[in-house]
Amino acid sequence: MAQASQATIGNSEFDRDTAVVRRAEGVYDIDLSAGWTIISAVNGGYLLAVLGRALADALPHADPFTISAHYLTASRPGPAVVRTDVVRTGRSLSTGQASLLQRDEHGQEVERIRVIASYGDLDTLPDDVRTTAKPPAIPPIEQCFGPEDGPAPVPGSSAITDRLMLKLDPSTLGWALGAPSGKGEMRAWFGLKDGRDADPLSLLLAVDALPPTAFELGISGWVPTVELTVHVRCRPAPGPLRVSVATRNLAGGFLEEDAEVWDSADRLVAQSRQLARVRLG
Amino acid sequence: MAQASQATIGNSEFDRDTAVVRRAEGVYDIDLSAGWTIISAVNGGYLLAVLGRALADALPHADPFTISAHYLTASRPGPAVVRTDVVRTGRSLSTGQASLLQRDEHGQEVERIRVIASYGDLDTLPDDVRTTAKPPAIPPIEQCFGPEDGPAPVPGSSAITDRLMLKLDPSTLGWALGAPSGKGEMRAWFGLKDGRDADPLSLLLAVDALPPTAFELGISGWVPTVELTVHVRCRPAPGPLRVSVATRNLAGGFLEEDAEVWDSADRLVAQSRQLARVRLG
Repeated sequence: MAQASQATIGNSEFDRDTAVVRRAEGVYDIDLSAGWTIISAVNGGYLLAVLGRALADALPHADPFTISAHYLTASRPGPAVVRTDVVRTGRSLSTGQASLLQRDEHGQEVERIRVIASYGDLDTLPDDVRTTAKPPAIPPIEQCFGPEDGPAPVPGSSAITDRLMLKLDPSTLGWALGAPSGKGEMRAWFGLKDGRDADPLSLLLAVDALPPTAFELGISGWVPTVELTVHVRCRPAPGPLRVSVATRNLAGGFLEEDAEVWDSADRLVAQSRQLARVRLG
Repeated sequence: MAQASQATIGNSEFDRDTAVVRRAEGVYDIDLSAGWTIISAVNGGYLLAVLGRALADALPHADPFTISAHYLTASRPGPAVVRTDVVRTGRSLSTGQASLLQRDEHGQEVERIRVIASYGDLDTLPDDVRTTAKPPAIPPIEQCFGPEDGPAPVPGSSAITDRLMLKLDPSTLGWALGAPSGKGEMRAWFGLKDGRDADPLSLLLAVDALPPTAFELGISGWVPTVELTVHVRCRPAPGPLRVSVATRNLAGGFLEEDAEVWDSADRLVAQSRQLARVRLG
């Protein structure tokens, strides 16, 4: 009866933890869950999914086609408010802005993240595909490794790892064995541990869920995101996703991380790029 | 005396045409030049440079580290206003938002573009470089082709081509000869025709100045930008730039364009990604 315990879209931990409650026109309350933290930080992809969900309610279109987030201050688990603003509504695309805010120890509202996004309806897009990109070369899921496999190949397990099915390609795991490849690549099978299938909102989580590519470049410090933009290109098919992340340019204390997300039907369903700071330890 | 006629940063047509006049705190006027149009559209990179210049004035930091623009409606040459908003100021980074607006035929303000950007000071960054990316393989400038070379290998010459030094790699010019490669790549040497060297603002122009990669995918229609994000990573050295643009995913009526800009010192000075619509002709 394993099937019966599977969570579905709309009825999973991810859905409960990203649920926003409309307080007034364009204003939403949420209690940020501690379940999506890594070390002490709330995962940036989880936060983006929260903002994305508020905008899906505020805008006449439901799917984020392109969403750009600038991370201002570190979010904490607990109460937060999302304030949205409809910038423009069109027939096929609408654009909105959103801010995530929390109160500091003095009760002052502090902005955590600001976002601009253009939304549409993925189901109305034509079927044409002329993608020249190929899915990432990644071994079968049984030959990949997660935090639960053996003597902690992935160190620093924390809350979020309990919620993700994350199986890393062994060829991008050199860092965990003290031998980073120097290549700046990270690849993994990705899903939600409760079995919920992927949708456009969970793709916002998928692009920022792997260990930093900086680890494979021999850097073990903290890599906070400055800006993250995600393009959702297709509604993902059921089944596990493959996520491939690459850094081409680590320089001047910053790096970019480009992610591609492929679904079980071999379609490139999302692309993202982030600019992150390198905090040497 | 050719050297004496060279324009310099701050004293060139690009500087005059992006100059914003501060009307009030955070509010800037500009007359958008018809000199940066292609067919009837004002170039998106030129518009981004205008917004970037207003934000450089409004924020305590001068250099755009990451700037994300959502293009809402088509800009026209003529008067426009830029309204900026300081989102957060920090020691090493500050974040701002800006909107470009124009009046329609009824005198109503219409928003053209909305931007969020994080600014810093490129000159304070450490010298570490661990870039794994290599400069694009592109023939010497003398072996590349621009609109002025022979029987119009680049069709549709218009105002912006008079202001750019754009020399395209012949191996990405198949489209101009009726034989697109199908590869979705475009490479060129890039500069300003008046000899002005590159700076962070002109990099915002450089990433969106080549013909669409869609041409090499066999598509000849219009490819309007929905969203464009640029990371400026380094102050460019004097001399011509090399720009390499690639599309991996054309599907569902949209495509992404990733650009890299390399300076004469072989440094990766900017990276960009845009989501554009494919309007089949």
